[in-house]
Amino acid sequence: MTEQNIAAMMDGLGRAARDAARTLARTSGEERNAALAAAAAALRRSSDSILAANERDLASARERGLAAAMLDRLALDPARLAGIAAGLEAIVELPDPLGRVLAEWTRPNGLRIQRVSVPLGVIGMVFESRPNVTADAAGLCLKSGNAVILRGGSESFESSRAIHAAIAGALEACGLPGAAVQLVPTRDRAAVGHLLAMREWIDVVVPRGGKSLIRRVQEDARVPVIGHLEGICHVYLHASADPDMAKAIVLNAKMRRTGICGAAETLLVDREAVERLVPGIVAALVEAGCEVRGDETIRSAADRVVSATEADWSTEYLDAIISARAVDGVEDAIEHIRRHGSGHTESIVADDAAAAEAFLAGVDSAIVLHNASTQFADGGEFGMGAEIGIATGRIHARGPVGAEQLTSYKYVVRGAGQLRP
Amino acid sequence: MTEQNIAAMMDGLGRAARDAARTLARTSGEERNAALAAAAAALRRSSDSILAANERDLASARERGLAAAMLDRLALDPARLAGIAAGLEAIVELPDPLGRVLAEWTRPNGLRIQRVSVPLGVIGMVFESRPNVTADAAGLCLKSGNAVILRGGSESFESSRAIHAAIAGALEACGLPGAAVQLVPTRDRAAVGHLLAMREWIDVVVPRGGKSLIRRVQEDARVPVIGHLEGICHVYLHASADPDMAKAIVLNAKMRRTGICGAAETLLVDREAVERLVPGIVAALVEAGCEVRGDETIRSAADRVVSATEADWSTEYLDAIISARAVDGVEDAIEHIRRHGSGHTESIVADDAAAAEAFLAGVDSAIVLHNASTQFADGGEFGMGAEIGIATGRIHARGPVGAEQLTSYKYVVRGAGQLRP
Repeated sequence: MTEQNIAAMMDGLGRAARDAARTLARTSGEERNAALAAAAAALRRSSDSILAANERDLASARERGLAAAMLDRLALDPARLAGIAAGLEAIVELPDPLGRVLAEWTRPNGLRIQRVSVPLGVIGMVFESRPNVTADAAGLCLKSGNAVILRGGSESFESSRAIHAAIAGALEACGLPGAAVQLVPTRDRAAVGHLLAMREWIDVVVPRGGKSLIRRVQEDARVPVIGHLEGICHVYLHASADPDMAKAIVLNAKMRRTGICGAAETLLVDREAVERLVPGIVAALVEAGCEVRGDETIRSAADRVVSATEADWSTEYLDAIISARAVDGVEDAIEHIRRHGSGHTESIVADDAAAAEAFLAGVDSAIVLHNASTQFADGGEFGMGAEIGIATGRIHARGPVGAEQLTSYKYVVRGAGQLRP
Repeated sequence: MTEQNIAAMMDGLGRAARDAARTLARTSGEERNAALAAAAAALRRSSDSILAANERDLASARERGLAAAMLDRLALDPARLAGIAAGLEAIVELPDPLGRVLAEWTRPNGLRIQRVSVPLGVIGMVFESRPNVTADAAGLCLKSGNAVILRGGSESFESSRAIHAAIAGALEACGLPGAAVQLVPTRDRAAVGHLLAMREWIDVVVPRGGKSLIRRVQEDARVPVIGHLEGICHVYLHASADPDMAKAIVLNAKMRRTGICGAAETLLVDREAVERLVPGIVAALVEAGCEVRGDETIRSAADRVVSATEADWSTEYLDAIISARAVDGVEDAIEHIRRHGSGHTESIVADDAAAAEAFLAGVDSAIVLHNASTQFADGGEFGMGAEIGIATGRIHARGPVGAEQLTSYKYVVRGAGQLRP
């Protein structure tokens, strides 16, 4: 396609999304739930064609020599596809995020004011190779009455297209506009540039993927962006930490899954507790296959610790590697996190309640935890049903972004003829 | 100053603001209230120097032939300055917007999750000639624990500088960082470009002023913007409207003050009610000095109505002019507002409750009212104490932006050693 054709095409998607959003905003929760259920059924019904499309994606990915981890992320099978359909059905069960009265009060002049939740409008979703995001994002946007324009990774283009076709067909069968869920129908990267600049049609962009994707979106976007660049998450062991709990939390936070944004990347330990806590924890980490990169204090307390460099404190490994250093109490830990953290998720392990409260108050991250694993940084684990991503920005939404966070509000004011003096 | 010097200066302001924001975030509501009270006292104490600075602004404005309305906006006198100080004291009385538990729940695994309000961080405030905005914005930002970088209009440069000096001095006397409230110390317009691009230092920009200022900010900003471009507000008279209430509301909505963003610009009247309602309302408007620009139906129903052109439906007059046309019921009114409105504030006058509810639900504006004047579109009238502006975007805040809207949140999670399975 020529640049001009892409611009015209994207503009057409945007216009159709805006129209669809208007229709969606006036649907009932029941109508949107019925469409979600129909979309789940359509995914099950279209299983053969979706898996065939995924096979085409996998074949060309293998041809281009994609890494095994990438192939795994891309691959669908009947069980994974059933999981995607079940995910849509789980969204049906969530409370309706629209029409909630968020606040209400009456003024002395008798005006009754309500702040009521409404859809955001049109969401642009830019993501990488996981084809399930197509359905998850479509489901959360539909639940919250938003139209969405999806732009998936080129590796999963055929899979996303097949999933999208099933969902859009189901919407239309339910009497909702198919354009409520659109997929950019080209692999051309120029389309993303247009998506990020369509201020008239797109209310917010949610990027999801690797750092280079997010950075590009954050830099090029002329519309608001909700997301996070990286998750350099910390576990801080206070001097009062219980050694068994500390070890269990560090291992879970680092090793349960190393590739997710809530995985711990740095361990901070109160200097006075290093001798007591570090040897056992390092042994368990190394035993579990984790490389430990420590400062002098950590290295002198435990064997098999590699020397950390300055760069380690600001690195998101997304791998079985953890950096570790000694700190001088809560304030020093807070200061280390301020300098090197990414504002995502940090946890303190402490028996001392005052230390824990100081950490929870003083660390300026989207999620702060006391005596729990950083891997709980997840919309599902928060009980939000599902998430479209996790936000580390300060505007609009912070932390897991679920259906409730995909809403705006308006003020509804009821009077009896009041005039402003 | 050279371009390079301005860049370095703005970067310095940004860095200092970020540091000050960190300090502010850890202050108590009492400390911030004490600083607000001290700032009010400092304004009263510095009355002579502030009025002298204002006199210099006025002299150069007169020299450059500024319009009388602009001069009036710029002018301070002892009474206005006392009002500004009283405004800061009123902000003291507002509830603390920080540390509010916005939601809390416990997960089946025992994790206790709280969503707690925190400051946004650093606000960039770009405004035009009213010197009072310097104090109002500083006050609301301080109340909500945010640092602010103020960039006022060049006409009010000296006045803003004197007001700012008093406030910053008061903060420091209270032990808070003076950099919590900074004023860009140059009239050079290049400074605004830097302010709008400092993603590392500025969390959100709030523009306040005329359309050309807002448009420039919206187009050039690389940081989130909260504000509104214009207020093309509508009053819709349903066929069931009480004629006396309709007349009173239209007159108040249009004529109480014509230059504010909540002033009505367009009157929509149900076709079947035109004969009954329009003659009296037009007579009263014309009597009050308002020009009425109507479509054929309106013109045939009342004398002294000028012919409206297509452009009138999308014009924010900010003057004693109103456009008026007949519509065919609630849906037609909603559709007219969708096409021509600016998403700010719209009112329906109706006795019919079902019609009112259809309008309130169907109109997608920041504020929708039933049987009340659009001029209530104001943070003070909403009981929010004060406002930094009114937002028509859909992200973060919509409608009046007060201290509560200048907050973000974080999740505080308390556990007892929970691991993610």
